[in-house]
This record gives sequence, C-alpha cells and structure tokens, in this order.
Amino acid sequence: MDLNSYLKDRQQRIDAALDRHLPAEDSLPERLHQAVRYSVFAGGKRLRPILMLAACEAVGGDTERVLPAACAIEMIHTYSLIHDDLPAMDDDDFRRGRPTCHKVYGDALAILAGDALLTEAFILLSGMAADTLQAEDACRRAMHIVARCAGSRGMVGGQVVDMESEGKEIDLPTLEYIHTHKTGALILASVQVGALLGGVDEAAYDALTRYAEAAGLAFQVADDILDIVGDQELLGKDVGSDEARGKATYPALLGLTGARQRARDLRDLALESLAEFGEAAEPLRQIAHYIVDRSF
Amino acid sequence: MDLNSYLKDRQQRIDAALDRHLPAEDSLPERLHQAVRYSVFAGGKRLRPILMLAACEAVGGDTERVLPAACAIEMIHTYSLIHDDLPAMDDDDFRRGRPTCHKVYGDALAILAGDALLTEAFILLSGMAADTLQAEDACRRAMHIVARCAGSRGMVGGQVVDMESEGKEIDLPTLEYIHTHKTGALILASVQVGALLGGVDEAAYDALTRYAEAAGLAFQVADDILDIVGDQELLGKDVGSDEARGKATYPALLGLTGARQRARDLRDLALESLAEFGEAAEPLRQIAHYIVDRSF
Repeated sequence: MDLNSYLKDRQQRIDAALDRHLPAEDSLPERLHQAVRYSVFAGGKRLRPILMLAACEAVGGDTERVLPAACAIEMIHTYSLIHDDLPAMDDDDFRRGRPTCHKVYGDALAILAGDALLTEAFILLSGMAADTLQAEDACRRAMHIVARCAGSRGMVGGQVVDMESEGKEIDLPTLEYIHTHKTGALILASVQVGALLGGVDEAAYDALTRYAEAAGLAFQVADDILDIVGDQELLGKDVGSDEARGKATYPALLGLTGARQRARDLRDLALESLAEFGEAAEPLRQIAHYIVDRSF
Repeated sequence: MDLNSYLKDRQQRIDAALDRHLPAEDSLPERLHQAVRYSVFAGGKRLRPILMLAACEAVGGDTERVLPAACAIEMIHTYSLIHDDLPAMDDDDFRRGRPTCHKVYGDALAILAGDALLTEAFILLSGMAADTLQAEDACRRAMHIVARCAGSRGMVGGQVVDMESEGKEIDLPTLEYIHTHKTGALILASVQVGALLGGVDEAAYDALTRYAEAAGLAFQVADDILDIVGDQELLGKDVGSDEARGKATYPALLGLTGARQRARDLRDLALESLAEFGEAAEPLRQIAHYIVDRSF
C-alpha cells in the first residue's frame, strides 16, 4: 500500500464528514460557528480519526459507520488546541502557520468555541443509534472511552500536570504521565473506539490497546525530537519552543540518541502487538512507521 | 407537600451523589480535582438536577436511576459558571459569596476545571448501562438531549449572543433567544431527561417539554427582576450587576410591572401544561411557584 495516498484519501473523507457534521457558518450564533470551523479546518493531519478508521479496518469493520465518532475525536483534539493556545495557558499566537483562534476571534469566543466543539463531539457520539442491544452497547462504551480519555484522568489531567511542570525539573515517570495522558489518551481512545465499533473480539481489542499505547507514546517522543531537529513546517509550531518554555522533553532527559532509541523501541512494540493481524492491519503498521520515521 | 423540606432532601441526595461521582481531591491531578470540587460544592441550589428528579417522579419513574444524569446536568451547569466568570468573559470575582474558581486557582486551571467538568458529565451519562434495547436507547437519547442543549445551538450559543449583546440595545426576541438558550436549554434538558429515563410516554413528554420551556423562561425573568429589587444573598451575585454591565433585562424592556406579569403568565403556562398529571407532579408545580414567587 502507498501510505501517502492512503492518508490523503482518509483525510478527505474525514474533512468531508466534518463539514457535514459541523453547524454551518451562517447558523446562529454565526461568529461562534465561524470560529469553530476556522479552527477545525486549519490544516490538521487528522491523525486521530485516521487511526480510528484504520483500527476499524484492521478488525474488518465498516469504516463508514465510524465516521461520526472519527469526527468527534478530531473535534475534541481541536478544542484542546484552542484552549491550550489561550493567553491564560500556553499563549500561542500561531498554530500550523495561522493565527490561533483567540488571536482572530478574541479570548472569550475562543473559550466558547472550544466548549462548543467538546460538546459537539458528544452530540455526534450520542447520535449514533443502533438496532441491536449489542451494537447499542458498543456505541455507549465507545462514548464512555472517549469521555474518560478526554477528561480529568485523561487528556485534561495531562495538560494540568504539563502546566504544573513548566520550568521545573521532572523525572521520566512524570514525563510519561504527561504524555500518556495529554497526547496518548486520545490516541488510545481513537484506536479502541475504531476497534469497538468495528466489532472487535476481546483478544484483538487487547492487542490494539497495546498498539495504541506504544504508538501514542512514540508519537510524543518523535514530536519532542522534532522540536529540536525538525523544520517548522513539519512540526506546525516554532522549533525550539518547548525548550524556550522550559518544558521537559525526551531528548532533554534521555539525550537525542536515547530519545531516538526510545522512539524506535516503541514503534517496534506497536508493530509486534499487531503480529496476529493480517493484511487489514497494514495501515496501522505503516502509521507506526510514519509516526517515528518523520523524526529521523 | 412541604416544598422546603422536599428541596432540602433532594439537594442532599444530589450532593451525596456528586460527592460519590466526582474524582477525589487526592486523585491526580490533585489541584484540578480540588478546583472542580471547590466549584461544584459552592452552595448551588441544585435547581436543574432537582427538576430532573421531579420530572422522573412525575411520570412514576425510579429517581435513584436518574441520579447520575442529575449529577451530570449540575456538572455542566457548574462548568458554564466557571467559564462565564473568567476575566475573558464576565470577569466576576465572587459567586455565591465566595471567590470564583479562577480567583482561587488561576485562569488556566479554571479553564481546565470547566473542561474537566463538562467531560465528566459525559463520563457519567455514558456510564449508565441498561439491559434492554429500549432502556439503552432512552439513555442514549438522554445523552443526546443534554449534549444538544449544552452546545453551540443551546447554552453556549446563548452565552455567545448574550456577550455580543452587551452594551447594545436589543429587542425582546433577541432577549428571549439569549434566555431560552443560555438558561432555558439546560432546564429543558433536565426535565426531558428526567422524564425520558423515568419511562415517559409521548403525550406526557410533550406536556413536560411545555412545562420546562415556560418554567425556564420564568426563571430568567424572575432572575432579572431580582437583579433590580432582590437582596444579594438570594441572588448570589451583586444586585444591579446586569445593569452595570449594560445587559438587557426583562424589566428594562417591559418595565418592572410588565416583567412581573410576564413571570406570572409563564408560571401559569407551566402549571397548565401539568393539568393531566396527578399528585406525582406536585413537586414540579410547587417549583414553578417557587421560581416566580421569589421575585415578588
């Protein structure tokens, strides 16, 4: 398979679904919906929803049915970026080369656009009706996973500990707590939900969970490496911005060589967990490679 | 029935359930969970969850089963207050006589505490498993109602239009848009979800929807009146603060007498919609009286 055309195709399907599911720019309140769409269509790679579709594919599920949940996970990711960028938080003026939401629409509307997106995700998730008890239960469990991974013991919790750790010396366990929560939790939810809605059995679910945990952490290690050696375009934020902000990173704790080794080990762990899967898991395998190899 | 002891009993049941369902203060990240609990246990009247239990009661349902959803609605209400109070929004230093969340925990943690509470609400809602397709479907629909009422075409939408209207002359339709969305939507969701989880039939559901729409608007008219004539303790915010902020209010548009008449009309409309209900709807009736009579 050609990963680039796979990613491009999935991106387009997800973007089209997001466009269908988000309130129109001219629906009231117009400025709010403009702010929401400005941030959602800011050129994201759609990694999380793509992982969801790929996990569904890996277990032989119907990816069309998963699209609303895939949109939901991207909305939650986008809301987290909008709030993270606020002056009260990371105070970032640019993201992916464009002014951040609050720079264009003001702080108040940015807060509310984030709130709206988080809520919209659950509108979509709870809108997925099913006609058997088993399928309805899978939808409910999917929603539960998303909520738990996004909440105070998931993504929001990671963001809090990240914030509290700024400018402090932290150890590797704390750094891994931050990343398994701040970035890892939503990646884990993406894979688990894709598998669940695809009709996964228990053994495959556990294997895909191990895949997602390893790939999620690998993604963050690679991001930290890119923050040092990468180019700004690939990274979507200023190179060196973590260091400037006094944020702990893997290269800072393990050295560049150590961090690269850790990324490779995590990639291999992700690949091993897919050993029992056939051709259908090829996209997940290639994504694991892609996540890590971009940092070399 | 004695309304005061009814309200007190329900308040205690809801507070106990909130305490059970919220993450402990010593669970990671501790400061986040402290901020969350600080705001949730700030002495709220629990009007929305009480309405949910009362609606469930009115249709002969088991209120015990509705408690998680009742907690969820109060969490969403609390998150909206935390975000509304932020310096970027209404910039309020006090609520119910206590320093607001961001005054105690800082702006960043207040944003994240709000985010966490909104998400926690959906953790609770999606945690309500059922063992029949019909009951599972009712849970899913309940979640959908909550999400829609809380989102950009509900509560958040009302907040945006309210913000955009500050210092401007607005007409009655705009004022009613603000209130049916900003306050009304969550009150509507409370009643609808209580009814739905209580096993309501279609006719009763429509009647309760009319009740909630009227009572929700009455609540806001009464609040506006109290902002002018009330005492601060009853209101929980500074008397005259709406006027000082250039916010449109019912007394400003209809005069004090006109506003009081509107509140009475809405209360009567709420009561009429309960005409087909028996003794079990008595709490809902008394709450409609309570909502309006406190402004006289």
